Amino acid sequence: MNLLSSKHLAFYGYRSILWFLFLLLSAVADARSTDPLPSWNSGLSKSAIMQFVKDVTRKGGSDFVPPAERIATFDNDGTLWCEQPMTVQLVFALDRVKAVAPEHPEWKHTEPFKSILANDMKGVMATGEHGLVELIMTTHTGMTVEEFNQIAKYWLTQSKHPKFNRPYTELVYQPMLELLSYLRANGFKTYVVSGGGIEFMRPWTEKVYGIPPEQVIGSSIKMKYELVDGKPVLMRLPEIDFVDDKDGKPVGIQKFIGRRPIAAFGNSDGDLQMLQWTTATNAPHFALLVHHTDAEREYAYDRDSSIGRLDKALDEARQKSWTVVDMKKDWKRVFPLEKP
Amino acid sequence: MNLLSSKHLAFYGYRSILWFLFLLLSAVADARSTDPLPSWNSGLSKSAIMQFVKDVTRKGGSDFVPPAERIATFDNDGTLWCEQPMTVQLVFALDRVKAVAPEHPEWKHTEPFKSILANDMKGVMATGEHGLVELIMTTHTGMTVEEFNQIAKYWLTQSKHPKFNRPYTELVYQPMLELLSYLRANGFKTYVVSGGGIEFMRPWTEKVYGIPPEQVIGSSIKMKYELVDGKPVLMRLPEIDFVDDKDGKPVGIQKFIGRRPIAAFGNSDGDLQMLQWTTATNAPHFALLVHHTDAEREYAYDRDSSIGRLDKALDEARQKSWTVVDMKKDWKRVFPLEKP
Repeated sequence: MNLLSSKHLAFYGYRSILWFLFLLLSAVADARSTDPLPSWNSGLSKSAIMQFVKDVTRKGGSDFVPPAERIATFDNDGTLWCEQPMTVQLVFALDRVKAVAPEHPEWKHTEPFKSILANDMKGVMATGEHGLVELIMTTHTGMTVEEFNQIAKYWLTQSKHPKFNRPYTELVYQPMLELLSYLRANGFKTYVVSGGGIEFMRPWTEKVYGIPPEQVIGSSIKMKYELVDGKPVLMRLPEIDFVDDKDGKPVGIQKFIGRRPIAAFGNSDGDLQMLQWTTATNAPHFALLVHHTDAEREYAYDRDSSIGRLDKALDEARQKSWTVVDMKKDWKRVFPLEKP
Repeated sequence: MNLLSSKHLAFYGYRSILWFLFLLLSAVADARSTDPLPSWNSGLSKSAIMQFVKDVTRKGGSDFVPPAERIATFDNDGTLWCEQPMTVQLVFALDRVKAVAPEHPEWKHTEPFKSILANDMKGVMATGEHGLVELIMTTHTGMTVEEFNQIAKYWLTQSKHPKFNRPYTELVYQPMLELLSYLRANGFKTYVVSGGGIEFMRPWTEKVYGIPPEQVIGSSIKMKYELVDGKPVLMRLPEIDFVDDKDGKPVGIQKFIGRRPIAAFGNSDGDLQMLQWTTATNAPHFALLVHHTDAEREYAYDRDSSIGRLDKALDEARQKSWTVVDMKKDWKRVFPLEKP
């Protein structure tokens, strides 16, 4: 038998090509299935994350961190979900004013309600911090915790983002969802540490982020334990308890967790102190900022934005070599609804 | 061969007795090793605990509770460790005054320090709430969180209980340690919810109770994030942030955990609201009070005690059929140091 006949060569060549294709496709499929961060493009951000996780989980390695100490904290607005063109909780507050306005005829003549009801956002902004506090207290207090959770939860099922026409809880960042899962699969405990209201987030973070209520840290109003007809309730009082933003984030972290995170993730100057606190140690640590650079798929904003301003933190990130995610370049997908 | 000869009978009889003894000893050893609460005597308290755990963990059962919702909260002073003749943290505060007195010559003339330095406890008590707040602020604030944790941790290694002559962290209740382990083995997340200072407990609860810092809730003072020589620190300010006692306990639970516990454990009127809150639901729940009835092995106190008073809560427990542990009757051992 002549194995080198042209007929045989053609036969084996054909088989070889098929075999090669099969191996190639398998390898691609394999890489896809074993890549824990499939929505992240290869690059410095992705490799920095994966190197850090590899280092702190390698037993016997110099950077090994015991699982109990693998605390990772994530800002919410702009880091895990979309915060433009307006923070979701502010949209909620404005909607609530409109929903309960019939019970408050006096609002036609008092700010910030008058401007809200007239859809005059400039007028609302003109009422300043006083108007904002008034708005939050009116819409977020005077009910029990359980009642507020129901209101917030229901509103989220009913409301849609003006640009994407999707519920807000679908406008979470797919690469960050993968990052949360990846960290948890490596023994990390993941926390939300947000300037937003703690009870506004708790009803949905478990379902959307896999983060249970007890791992959500946020701003809060005071509560009071009361017996109503002999039944205990927790009433939400119109008084600020804690502002979990900027200087407040390391305080909130110590208050709730009682130890320093080894990794922190943010996107704005409101996260700067959390990243400073996380990295001010000789122990292994990781800090990352999401830089919104994608006007097409999401929004592009940084130093001049009134919402989620990223200015000082961007400078400090560069100076201290923190990881800065270029959303446009680093993320293959932005939202889960985009097909992979 | 005659199997019924007296010689054979004696032989088999001897073997049977040995075999019987072996089985008996095995069964005893087995019962000991499989009893999750070996320091609890059989009785209503032990069976109520075990029945509850059985009910909420039985898949498909009407009282099944998913693991994520199995939250159990424990008071600390008098529930997990000895609080007599004086709350441990108060002993710590008094000791701290003596330790730093040389730096404060003015204390010779100002209360409550003058009385403390003269070992005049009646004089200290006469300074009332104002004196107590002064004492706590002076000894617990004005340093960073890390510094305070070191001070508290070191003090605990150096100090001994006046009656038992042992470190306070050895005067924890063995039956409650077993209960904590038993609940965790059944998927529960165990929390400390104490009127005591949160940062006074965190340095040692993981080692002693198996409860990590992020599952410790307690009273707190305000903290401030500061840069000292460019290095971030959390300073403890002389201002009360939150009192986690009585009405404060359900508030602290909601603030930190964000869901209602399904089981709560206390020993005094300071725990009443936590037990009310835990049991005010149609969902499965469990409430238990430790009643200190053992003057010999520990202390006997309830309605008339100034520390850990148990009066209203005892009445409500009987009225609502909560489990009341009779320490003398229900506990085989009180402290781990006693031989089993």
